[in-house]
Amino acid sequence: MSSTPRPRIGIIGTGAIGGFYGLMLARAGFDVHFLLRSEYRAVVENGIHLNSAVHGALTLNPVQAYSNAADMPRCDWLLVGAKTTSNAALVPAITQAAADGAKILLLQNGLGVEDELRPLLPDNLHLLGGLCLICVHRAQAGVIEHQALGTVNLGYHSGPASDQEREQITAAGAAMFNLAGIDSTVAAELGQARWQKLVWNVPYNGLSVLLDSGTSGLMASQSSRELIAAIMGEVVAGAGACGYQIPADFAAKMLKATERMPDYLPSMYHDHAHKRPLELKAIYAAPLAAAAAAGCSMPRIEALYQALQFIDQRNSQE
Amino acid sequence: MSSTPRPRIGIIGTGAIGGFYGLMLARAGFDVHFLLRSEYRAVVENGIHLNSAVHGALTLNPVQAYSNAADMPRCDWLLVGAKTTSNAALVPAITQAAADGAKILLLQNGLGVEDELRPLLPDNLHLLGGLCLICVHRAQAGVIEHQALGTVNLGYHSGPASDQEREQITAAGAAMFNLAGIDSTVAAELGQARWQKLVWNVPYNGLSVLLDSGTSGLMASQSSRELIAAIMGEVVAGAGACGYQIPADFAAKMLKATERMPDYLPSMYHDHAHKRPLELKAIYAAPLAAAAAAGCSMPRIEALYQALQFIDQRNSQE
Repeated sequence: MSSTPRPRIGIIGTGAIGGFYGLMLARAGFDVHFLLRSEYRAVVENGIHLNSAVHGALTLNPVQAYSNAADMPRCDWLLVGAKTTSNAALVPAITQAAADGAKILLLQNGLGVEDELRPLLPDNLHLLGGLCLICVHRAQAGVIEHQALGTVNLGYHSGPASDQEREQITAAGAAMFNLAGIDSTVAAELGQARWQKLVWNVPYNGLSVLLDSGTSGLMASQSSRELIAAIMGEVVAGAGACGYQIPADFAAKMLKATERMPDYLPSMYHDHAHKRPLELKAIYAAPLAAAAAAGCSMPRIEALYQALQFIDQRNSQE
Repeated sequence: MSSTPRPRIGIIGTGAIGGFYGLMLARAGFDVHFLLRSEYRAVVENGIHLNSAVHGALTLNPVQAYSNAADMPRCDWLLVGAKTTSNAALVPAITQAAADGAKILLLQNGLGVEDELRPLLPDNLHLLGGLCLICVHRAQAGVIEHQALGTVNLGYHSGPASDQEREQITAAGAAMFNLAGIDSTVAAELGQARWQKLVWNVPYNGLSVLLDSGTSGLMASQSSRELIAAIMGEVVAGAGACGYQIPADFAAKMLKATERMPDYLPSMYHDHAHKRPLELKAIYAAPLAAAAAAGCSMPRIEALYQALQFIDQRNSQE
């Protein structure tokens, strides 16, 4: 990377995820530009603050902040950390902020998010997905709490690249994060990576809302542990039906890894607490539809999804 | 019945169910004796009040109330309206208050409650189960709110009766309720009646707790309606595996009947709100075990049970 000019990076959706990775990249010397909405004023005035159990207390100030994508310089990479529920609404901002041949990296969980966005994007843009294994949340405007982890597992979805160029792009993306002190790996198959991430997200996101509990509480009770394990088993079966073989010990490893984590409230818990829309389509509806199309039913996940839909609808009415 | 002396009736557990049926029977002229614990003082001083949308405002005062079963006269019928979770603890009271050859009628939901109690009872006592289709709850000490319905479907479980005597006993029980203005039917098979009642209790009791909602809210959302219907389908399948064929249109009828009901908070909702033990063994664990023994899995119900166990355990720690 030494002789290559460092790419210009745009952050679309500067919440916990976008703020964390954007700040880390900016502090590593990358030219990072942040698109903000409700937090624009606070970030311009006070910068972005990261309270990290891993990296310590870090501040980025001043911030190259924008309230309008039209004012941003054209970026080589756009990191989208917004909620999946707002992807379609972000298309104009992405298109405006993207340089020719830009790489659009969705730092989002769930299934089908690239498939949904792709038809709305110009053909000259590369689309990638990135699965973030991280415990992070936004404490207040411009203030991010980072409890643990941070790995980004990224894969190429679609765009004008040849097979060889795809490998170069994903390797460059991982190297970019590595230079910022962040573990990053390349997924040969983005679909596989998304299903593997769902093994964690499907049980913990929904159950944290339904049972009003962080991960420590969920792991402390044998009943909820068994429920989580059963739901993980359904995700693994659904992935298998869709052609993605998840290693036999993967779910058990996720359970163990979660036990070692600090008590963590998944993003859906925070969305629920703030009566924001829950990411049900990406994390529940899309995997259920994909598995059903492959002849696989996931009854516990379907029940969880229906219960969460009830809660999401009630939140929207309050 | 005219020439037969009216039986003496004891009410064991004078909550909403015991209080409602006991008051109605007492007002119809039966000799009814109430065993009370925490509400004894209030009932002695103020009587039992029923605010019924069906029967109007009714009061029973004075009440033949007892705080100790040893003080009660020996009764021909004992109606047990306590929570299933306290049945074993009630054995001494039942045995003390029962006349020779008394009929013990468990006005309780769930499966296996008679099987669990039978070995603890003397052989000379008849044991029956009664399924109450009723919307009733205890508003405060000695005050019962009755919103709708009231039917008792009763069946013989075990005891010293011949087949012919069983029919006489169940018919006499139904006649007793009828004389008090309460619909009552005889179930040829108590197991069948219990499974049919579970078609309603399994979804509505648990989901009212998990989703913090009465029946109207649960029926107003398509998501929760579909979840309820799917859970009902699992109960019907479980019953079938256990040898009890539930009519094909029964679940649909339950859904329609629930839509016509006033907004109702099932008993488990009230137990949860007051941090009392939830009746998980009778309503979830026993049906799951019976179905599993018959080779039938009920994954949604198992997931619901595990979620409720988590909540029940947390309640007990608060």
